[in-house]
Amino acid sequence: MEPMTDGNRSSAGAPRTSAPAATSFETQPSRYKHWKLRVDGDIATLVMAVDDAHPHKPGYELKLNSYDLSVDIELADAILRLRFEHPEVKCVVMTAELDRVFCSGANIYMLGQSTHSFKVNFCKFTNETRLYLEDASANSGLASLCACKGTTAGGGYELALACDETMLVDDGNSAVSFPETPLLAVLPGTGGLTRLVDKRKVRRDRADVFCTTAEGIKGKRAKDWGLVDHLVSRTKWDESVIAAAKALAAKQTVTRGPAVVLPPLECKITPDALRYRYVEVAIDAGARTAALLVRGPEADAVMDFTSPDTWSLRAFRELDDALLRLRFDFPDIGVVTVRTAGDPKLVVSHDEILAKTNTGFAREVRLLQRRVLKRYDNTARSLYAVADRADSCFAGSLLELALGADRFYMLIDDGIGVATSVANTGFMTTSTGMSRLEARFFGDPARVKAVLERGASKPRNGASSNDSAARTKFVDDHQLTHVVELIESEEAEQLGIATVAADDIDFADELRIAIEERASLSPDALTGMEQSLRFVGPETMETKIFGRLSAWQNWIFTRANSTGEHGALTLYGRPERPQFQWKRT
Amino acid sequence: MEPMTDGNRSSAGAPRTSAPAATSFETQPSRYKHWKLRVDGDIATLVMAVDDAHPHKPGYELKLNSYDLSVDIELADAILRLRFEHPEVKCVVMTAELDRVFCSGANIYMLGQSTHSFKVNFCKFTNETRLYLEDASANSGLASLCACKGTTAGGGYELALACDETMLVDDGNSAVSFPETPLLAVLPGTGGLTRLVDKRKVRRDRADVFCTTAEGIKGKRAKDWGLVDHLVSRTKWDESVIAAAKALAAKQTVTRGPAVVLPPLECKITPDALRYRYVEVAIDAGARTAALLVRGPEADAVMDFTSPDTWSLRAFRELDDALLRLRFDFPDIGVVTVRTAGDPKLVVSHDEILAKTNTGFAREVRLLQRRVLKRYDNTARSLYAVADRADSCFAGSLLELALGADRFYMLIDDGIGVATSVANTGFMTTSTGMSRLEARFFGDPARVKAVLERGASKPRNGASSNDSAARTKFVDDHQLTHVVELIESEEAEQLGIATVAADDIDFADELRIAIEERASLSPDALTGMEQSLRFVGPETMETKIFGRLSAWQNWIFTRANSTGEHGALTLYGRPERPQFQWKRT
Repeated sequence: MEPMTDGNRSSAGAPRTSAPAATSFETQPSRYKHWKLRVDGDIATLVMAVDDAHPHKPGYELKLNSYDLSVDIELADAILRLRFEHPEVKCVVMTAELDRVFCSGANIYMLGQSTHSFKVNFCKFTNETRLYLEDASANSGLASLCACKGTTAGGGYELALACDETMLVDDGNSAVSFPETPLLAVLPGTGGLTRLVDKRKVRRDRADVFCTTAEGIKGKRAKDWGLVDHLVSRTKWDESVIAAAKALAAKQTVTRGPAVVLPPLECKITPDALRYRYVEVAIDAGARTAALLVRGPEADAVMDFTSPDTWSLRAFRELDDALLRLRFDFPDIGVVTVRTAGDPKLVVSHDEILAKTNTGFAREVRLLQRRVLKRYDNTARSLYAVADRADSCFAGSLLELALGADRFYMLIDDGIGVATSVANTGFMTTSTGMSRLEARFFGDPARVKAVLERGASKPRNGASSNDSAARTKFVDDHQLTHVVELIESEEAEQLGIATVAADDIDFADELRIAIEERASLSPDALTGMEQSLRFVGPETMETKIFGRLSAWQNWIFTRANSTGEHGALTLYGRPERPQFQWKRT
Repeated sequence: MEPMTDGNRSSAGAPRTSAPAATSFETQPSRYKHWKLRVDGDIATLVMAVDDAHPHKPGYELKLNSYDLSVDIELADAILRLRFEHPEVKCVVMTAELDRVFCSGANIYMLGQSTHSFKVNFCKFTNETRLYLEDASANSGLASLCACKGTTAGGGYELALACDETMLVDDGNSAVSFPETPLLAVLPGTGGLTRLVDKRKVRRDRADVFCTTAEGIKGKRAKDWGLVDHLVSRTKWDESVIAAAKALAAKQTVTRGPAVVLPPLECKITPDALRYRYVEVAIDAGARTAALLVRGPEADAVMDFTSPDTWSLRAFRELDDALLRLRFDFPDIGVVTVRTAGDPKLVVSHDEILAKTNTGFAREVRLLQRRVLKRYDNTARSLYAVADRADSCFAGSLLELALGADRFYMLIDDGIGVATSVANTGFMTTSTGMSRLEARFFGDPARVKAVLERGASKPRNGASSNDSAARTKFVDDHQLTHVVELIESEEAEQLGIATVAADDIDFADELRIAIEERASLSPDALTGMEQSLRFVGPETMETKIFGRLSAWQNWIFTRANSTGEHGALTLYGRPERPQFQWKRT
């Protein structure tokens, strides 16, 4: 048995019954150990300078700019801060402090020592971070240039592939490479294979040669094959990096800002709960369930769309952090119930004002909400949304939590219902490119329309009689002209939003049995099932990375040829040669 | 170590060094043990009547119309024969001889006793057969109706999902179900999850409930949820089946025929080779390589497009059979070299005449070629196409073998080259829906155009000087007006067709080293890598089945929760309850 939060296989001496040690996903530039963030006008530079003495867990050294979870948590933080805190930056340059090595990829000893579940979650997190780089470029006017002045191997090259452009030094030695398959018997698992052919459109037979050539490809051939965009000598390196970064910056046309500094989230952690301002997670380790609660804005919540404390940002940042902690620190939790609490009208109002606010900051908040909801879709736990509180609040952006869940249970009771907002009309796309409503009614757009029309807020003729005083003031303050229609549980079931709507005679038993049954099933089969049912419809590079590439990598990670006693990943760095089982499957 | 052809885990007493026993994929209706094929006008009936005493391997009984490889080989044969031998049939009805059970799915004891590699190949074959049913409906005017007059579980319901319409008996008892996840800790692995949401567009939360409800869903709810198309009482069953089949038949507008009876392929099997008329496979067990050779038509080959012996059909049927035997009987073979031999002009001529022949039979031949090439793409072995014979013949439909390979090695020598034909211009799509040329030059249609224009046959001004007498006669006989342009190796490399073109000083060594290196790599990592690089571009229901669903299933099959000592699949039918490891990954 592995300790809950331990990425290392060896757990000798760790008390098994203690509260889980918490993995922190929060940091800030002044605390970075592995990256240096510099901002100079419209160009930022992220210097990878991995401190080999500070790995995420003891047991390995982060030599040659190899990375582990700690390194990637800092990278994710840096990208997020560039988006929110440095709107003047139009291009970020990734580079390294070492002169002959850009990055040698994920640390192999770390992988070799990690449990299967840690490896899978580590890869998922690094994949999300790479996608966030691409999201910043596509939607936020923040381009990226990877300046590889030396060896760029494995995950290092995968980071380069996630950037808009890649520059490789032409020194007769420095190569880009994917040595995973020939040296470790695993895949480049952070999107590399997919991006190689689907994004960079490297010819598939050349990609085949590249991915089986441990030493990689350098110089003119790397450029000719489309593996890199720029090939530059050492003497012209610095000026070329600046020129390419400036050229990328000059192409950006998206209006950003105002700058908003992201404050700490102040998560309170106890052995059985995570508590934030708007988000709570209660853990029932014995039942292997967690109860996630997301609160809507208070009536007097900050509605200043220049503030990091605005509900739309704060609540979703907290949700993001909670999802990551669930993934890494509570791997035995199989079922997560998802409840909401608050005033649906306030959520809808926040959504509507956010949508109407024409600033870069407001756009960043919407994009962050979208990314957090994708992280939710991609969390390998059974998600049951539950509307049974009198103050249940599945409205607008919070309704997405119900639409993204595997099932949605609604109690039939006065005042319990769902409400739509502008957040449900298309912007909050899943990784397939469809909205959650479109995915729910795949192939039947009329049903999407029916829900949105039924739920559409109606023109307001004075304050509605059941409007709270806070709401009325809110509506007046923001000159809103619409009121919200609550779709109660029975109608929500008829419209196809609720999976089950039941009255209070049946509800509690039905939900309890559904949770117990779900928690009793094989977690592996459930992950595969949910991956197939959640991502209905078109596939994208993003879904290919999580659905096709990661699925094969998960399989490969379980095989003796990589992680067995005589497997290549296990034996890396030792004198013994791996012994393979040769069956092709 | 497992015997090469043995699907069973236990191999006590089997001599380990003997020649592999051969799996035969050829059969015919008079030899069927598990199905009865009846044809009555434009309706055919395929009655599933599984003989439980004749499993594919000893060790389990095929009770309750459960199936194994033998049952599915007959089904695949029946569909093929309906297409070629019964062009009058416009709808095939799948039904069962048992009165209360349609089909209880893949036999669980068979799965529990099988090796991982057998399970994966068995699932792949059944998946291909289901897709062939859909191909017949989409392209050949052969619709299908699944008449489920009783329990329809697991793979039984997956068969139903592959049909155009499904009829379920409304008897208060008969249900459709996917008990795999709740009972066996695996997935419905034959396309079921994908078809449920992507083809039938069952709402994802309902699909989630369905897939975790072992007893399934019956009656009105099955119809309301879109799990079945027709719900019919026992008293009205027979007439309703006929009416629905007739209605499907009436919709068919595709011209079929003439009928052509498919003769046996007469494969000669020795311990180290498979030999057909046009196809040969030489096995080098020590090197874990196989040499596949496909010959083009002889100068006097049958060009009668009403004959089953026409090269275009015979050679591709042989290739199909060889691929299946490779998959099942030679699992240790990692690298397959693919060579061709013959006169490129004759292949191009056969392709062109086949394309011009406006009969149902000719269409069936083209569709069969396309399916065989998809089977090739989906074969989990490294495929190296090699043009080094003086009579190398990578032309037209045979050029697809080079374009579908992971790499293409070409010797630079007089007369060695490639040629395109109408077969390369779009019809021979891969499962992504793109042609192999489009996949090769993904995102760069100009390069596709350049190859097709360069290789296009030119108007003929009398016989070309290097035309053989046979070719000249052929051209005259068929009133062809074009001659073929051979693209020699160096130019093929420049155009992006060859991965490597080398002269005879370097060629043999380079190829030998490439094969040896490839054969030394982990077969698992290679499968995952090839699955990611081969299927560039858009995804379809077909690629989702093989890439997403099958990848997850492969992973799940390796997990202790299903196939471990205490796994659910292992313990099925025994009194012990499975014990699960709860980590979610």
